[in-house]
Amino acid sequence: MSDLTGPLPSGAVIGVLGGGQLGRMLALGAAPLGLRTHIFCQSDAEPAAQVTSLVTVAPFDDLEAVAAFAQACDVITTEFENVPVSTLQAAAAHCPVAPGPMALQVAQDRLTEKTFIANLGVPVAPFASIDSAEDLVAAAERLGLPGILKTRRLGYDGKGQVRLGAGLDVSGAADAIDELAGAPAIFERFVDFDHEISAIVVRDRSGAVVAYDPPRNDHRSGILHTSTVPSQTPGRRADQAIQHATTIATALDYVGVLAVEFFVVDGAALVVNEIAPRVHNSGHWTTDACNVSQFENHMRAVAGWPLGATDRHSDAKMTNLIGDEIDGIAVWAQRNDVAIHDYGKAEARPGRKMGHVTELAPRA
Amino acid sequence: MSDLTGPLPSGAVIGVLGGGQLGRMLALGAAPLGLRTHIFCQSDAEPAAQVTSLVTVAPFDDLEAVAAFAQACDVITTEFENVPVSTLQAAAAHCPVAPGPMALQVAQDRLTEKTFIANLGVPVAPFASIDSAEDLVAAAERLGLPGILKTRRLGYDGKGQVRLGAGLDVSGAADAIDELAGAPAIFERFVDFDHEISAIVVRDRSGAVVAYDPPRNDHRSGILHTSTVPSQTPGRRADQAIQHATTIATALDYVGVLAVEFFVVDGAALVVNEIAPRVHNSGHWTTDACNVSQFENHMRAVAGWPLGATDRHSDAKMTNLIGDEIDGIAVWAQRNDVAIHDYGKAEARPGRKMGHVTELAPRA
Repeated sequence: MSDLTGPLPSGAVIGVLGGGQLGRMLALGAAPLGLRTHIFCQSDAEPAAQVTSLVTVAPFDDLEAVAAFAQACDVITTEFENVPVSTLQAAAAHCPVAPGPMALQVAQDRLTEKTFIANLGVPVAPFASIDSAEDLVAAAERLGLPGILKTRRLGYDGKGQVRLGAGLDVSGAADAIDELAGAPAIFERFVDFDHEISAIVVRDRSGAVVAYDPPRNDHRSGILHTSTVPSQTPGRRADQAIQHATTIATALDYVGVLAVEFFVVDGAALVVNEIAPRVHNSGHWTTDACNVSQFENHMRAVAGWPLGATDRHSDAKMTNLIGDEIDGIAVWAQRNDVAIHDYGKAEARPGRKMGHVTELAPRA
Repeated sequence: MSDLTGPLPSGAVIGVLGGGQLGRMLALGAAPLGLRTHIFCQSDAEPAAQVTSLVTVAPFDDLEAVAAFAQACDVITTEFENVPVSTLQAAAAHCPVAPGPMALQVAQDRLTEKTFIANLGVPVAPFASIDSAEDLVAAAERLGLPGILKTRRLGYDGKGQVRLGAGLDVSGAADAIDELAGAPAIFERFVDFDHEISAIVVRDRSGAVVAYDPPRNDHRSGILHTSTVPSQTPGRRADQAIQHATTIATALDYVGVLAVEFFVVDGAALVVNEIAPRVHNSGHWTTDACNVSQFENHMRAVAGWPLGATDRHSDAKMTNLIGDEIDGIAVWAQRNDVAIHDYGKAEARPGRKMGHVTELAPRA
């Protein structure tokens, strides 16, 4: 399918594959532009399906439904990186897709992703492909421990991962491989970092890139807990993060928001942790603290519009509300310096991202 | 129907009578709170019907449809003041309604409105009830000219109005009465004002009131053209406007956003122009320049939530895009200091509000 020939006009339809909170916030970001959002999801109770009148409920492997969806859209994007490539291809036969299948293919496989990034000269943690316990023992000896074994595909927020301490033997390696149920894996040596930041860049169809102020990200139990701007990371390192992310986005001929997580290592280079070819949890504060949010900017890029200003009018700290932490939202809502974001999920399962809040302050 | 007993939880449904751009922005304001919006409108192409999955398409006088709609909602509000009172009453039989029917009844009749406000000790322009050319001649003699003859009910943005210059005679009065096709009318003496400001206040169910910084409003052809904050109006007069609006909201036992337009007269008291029992065009800049917009705050009040902060983080100038001015949106979208709002209306008829833009600057 050929690409867009110009900016989409008022009333045009952007299809979103996926119905979670990112799709919800993308739809809310597109509405002020006069652009409609068509959500492709698994249930009409999903967060994104609540905020638009255009919804298709079907499995991702129902390629007839995907084709009909694509025919009803002017352009299609994704709200999570694990949309099956066959689904994307079925959509792309009828309608431009942004970001393109290549970016998702790279991001869907941690080995492909690390190799791609390293080949661009952007530092990543030492890594090795793992298919057996022997591979793992050899990689641990060569690259050092502690480290982490991850499935090459799927898994997020700490799922599909095994941490490996010092003193790994063949038996321990076999246990770790078993834990991943034989899935192809990657070993990454642990990076002794001071903290994590992320670069959230937006690239349009002409190749122009804008970036948000990189936040500092802190995790709890393997799940993002807070993102804070300003990050206190020295400005030259934040600039370096944006440059690396721009290099990656350009190499992927990327269109939309690309997030790149970096380990900040004292006295050494930044190291890429991972990339996300989509709007990102660490950029949620942009809705409340910037002129144009990551969500609107993603939709602008996808729709062929000029990118919006990433300027930050306020300092911000975003806190995720996980599981029954959402019950505290009434208390957060009483605070004058807090913006509320409840994703409208019916069931507060443990570990589930239910909402977030942004604490705001005038720029220091 | 009894009132809410506490704040509505995530997933609760706020019904909105009316499907225009105000309903659209109310739905977009409710979504971050995890609250769903059910739009009652005349066509599924209306702006508000595009941004939620819950839509009822029916005429306002289909009271069975109104009852079914009300039974599907947890609370109901309105996006325009001319919802028929019979519609509101049919809804109120099944579901709390906020603001209540009294506020709309007052605002639906200019004579009732002026009388109500004057009785609170809040200044209004000299006015008289007009049922005939003789009434009009007498009122013009008693109150003075120039002035304006308006229908008591309906009419907005300059429609249903006749301007009356000096030297009105019986023949001219008869022509003016004819122009209103015999509708009951009100004569208002023209106020020689310097400029107009509006107070946008929000009152919650406990009687607490918060207010936005009153903008200066400038009109073109009887339609709001720009709203600007800060207004350059002296602070004590802005405070007076907020006090008057609070007096009116309290007297109406009002819940939600109430807008009151004031004439600022050099060296004299503020004079109320009119009130709007709803979110208001002159408050659209709050979406882009405040922590919590008028739309979210209206929905917070209606849903029994605590009110959000009206603090302004940026200076702002809102400009309406009327008719084919919407075609300029691509140019506005190129500016880094501008937020875009396209209401998604298919047809750009002359005089129709199609969208608005907000120019933003750091607080001076």
